[in-house]
Amino acid sequence: MIILNGGSSSGKTGIVRCLQDVLPDPWLAFGIDSLIEALPAKTQASEDGIEFGADGGVSVGTDFRALEAAWMAGLVAMAGSGARIIVDDVFLSGAASQQRWRDAVGDTDVLWVGVRCDSEVAAAREVARGDRTKGMAASQARLAHEGVAYDLEVDTTRTESLTCARTIAARVA
Amino acid sequence: MIILNGGSSSGKTGIVRCLQDVLPDPWLAFGIDSLIEALPAKTQASEDGIEFGADGGVSVGTDFRALEAAWMAGLVAMAGSGARIIVDDVFLSGAASQQRWRDAVGDTDVLWVGVRCDSEVAAAREVARGDRTKGMAASQARLAHEGVAYDLEVDTTRTESLTCARTIAARVA
Amino acid sequence: MIILNGGSSSGKTGIVRCLQDVLPDPWLAFGIDSLIEALPAKTQASEDGIEFGADGGVSVGTDFRALEAAWMAGLVAMAGSGARIIVDDVFLSGAASQQRWRDAVGDTDVLWVGVRCDSEVAAAREVARGDRTKGMAASQARLAHEGVAYDLEVDTTRTESLTCARTIAARVA
Amino acid sequence: MIILNGGSSSGKTGIVRCLQDVLPDPWLAFGIDSLIEALPAKTQASEDGIEFGADGGVSVGTDFRALEAAWMAGLVAMAGSGARIIVDDVFLSGAASQQRWRDAVGDTDVLWVGVRCDSEVAAAREVARGDRTKGMAASQARLAHEGVAYDLEVDTTRTESLTCARTIAARVA
Repeated sequence: MIILNGGSSSGKTGIVRCLQDVLPDPWLAFGIDSLIEALPAKTQASEDGIEFGADGGVSVGTDFRALEAAWMAGLVAMAGSGARIIVDDVFLSGAASQQRWRDAVGDTDVLWVGVRCDSEVAAAREVARGDRTKGMAASQARLAHEGVAYDLEVDTTRTESLTCARTIAARVA
Repeated sequence: MIILNGGSSSGKTGIVRCLQDVLPDPWLAFGIDSLIEALPAKTQASEDGIEFGADGGVSVGTDFRALEAAWMAGLVAMAGSGARIIVDDVFLSGAASQQRWRDAVGDTDVLWVGVRCDSEVAAAREVARGDRTKGMAASQARLAHEGVAYDLEVDTTRTESLTCARTIAARVA
Repeated sequence: MIILNGGSSSGKTGIVRCLQDVLPDPWLAFGIDSLIEALPAKTQASEDGIEFGADGGVSVGTDFRALEAAWMAGLVAMAGSGARIIVDDVFLSGAASQQRWRDAVGDTDVLWVGVRCDSEVAAAREVARGDRTKGMAASQARLAHEGVAYDLEVDTTRTESLTCARTIAARVA
Repeated sequence: MIILNGGSSSGKTGIVRCLQDVLPDPWLAFGIDSLIEALPAKTQASEDGIEFGADGGVSVGTDFRALEAAWMAGLVAMAGSGARIIVDDVFLSGAASQQRWRDAVGDTDVLWVGVRCDSEVAAAREVARGDRTKGMAASQARLAHEGVAYDLEVDTTRTESLTCARTIAARVA
């Protein structure tokens, strides 16, 4: 498993697509966005589920945490069944988020990758995407990495996704 | 777990969204489309992966089958970890597809739901969607149900998705 | 030009795609959704632009009205330059909305089509779509048709989009 | 009117979204992609319409050219009716494409902007997007600019979209 962590608009999705392209074997890609899509519409905007504030803040409730834990266990089981799995996540609680993943992965081999991007640049890319609440990129740029330990870190501020992906892939082969 | 099976454009996705709305607890929804999205772009259009013919035919290769088996095992593990899971699939091999799921689910409690739609109506809805290869709906309308056993069948030909969902939900509560 | 009017989730988009399929010549399709997409993100959620209330209500401001008038004039000019144009709109102000279009179209030949759908069925389809604010379909189902005159009306409550499209196409040929 | 020209994956769309954000007035954004979306599905993949080759080549037919000319005239008419319009296009025929626009715009005030991106970087971004045929970015990177005259050129190779947008906006105010 490869687990990428980085703030909103740090370039995780682009790196994942490039990784899937450069890695010779087929890897399945899942992410926190695909979990949110799997939620009922009514849970996506509820206190028990996940809420996106007008200022870019994100808060999650008990239902979300329970479903997220099951989702993590499921992805680890996919890896246990022989699939190569890439996950991209935003560690909103920093080290505590990583601990949740550590509890889920158990003995599974994981490459922990930090995806950094200067706060100002991530905020600029958020504007260019046009579909994200302004402020999310800036608020997550540092927060997501607090107390997190990585095998490898990449920085998309001045490096293209494909180049970052090649650096990561070199550690997998 | 609820596993829905039906041909392309039979209305599975609409039923899933309605089920997520009418069921009081939050259910996670996954489908064959979400598996395909998780594949590398290069695998989506390869002999080893999955190929969509110009006539609406779909063929899958060994890589796809292996990843699909791991994906099934992962979704079952999510259910085993306490998440309520809805899956929508197209049983391209009919009874053999159902057997693959039976092997994956083991002792997990499953409600098997068949989603029927008259071939001609499904083909008309395929035109209205505009993003599917013409012919897929017609070719899968009967094929997907061959030899498959259900707990419950719904038919979207003249019944709205929400009504079908309420029928299914009544069996879950 | 063909101008279709109907409430949210009444099935306009499906009919438009089917019309484009059944009409022998290539027709360009534009709609109120494509105008909203063309707006700056910041205008999409502002008092001067267009606001979508949590209850499904929609209110538009002076900036939106000015841009909409220019957009209408532009689509009419496309038709004047030889393109066949289909527009789908929601006449939020009923007869007054139609008058705005009449002012814009001038001498251009227009087929006015009303797209009806029972309020309850439209509301059910809104749930099945999953991406619309609940309440919009119900609030617009009657409102959009108040005082509007049509050359032709179709009703998607029990008729497929493709059948409705064929009825409309028969009036164009 | 602002008309941006650049190859696929050169970053036009990001710049357009940023322009809409930084410009104080609301500007409507249209692009070659929105014209293609407006086409019938059957025209999108036909000799008379527009065809995307497996190698990233794009060829257009007589139907497309006629509809495109009407579309251009319509956008110019929107500008003539008081709307501020941003267009992003790919000048597949270089100078000849610009001449078609010049014929359409007549006396309307236009800011011509070239959006450059090194061929290799554009190709890398194409991989990161994951939804474009490989080869399109490379084949259009130089081709789109052949013989085209600009008021202003920006280069996204090492400059963020937001910065490029600010440079352009400074010429508009």
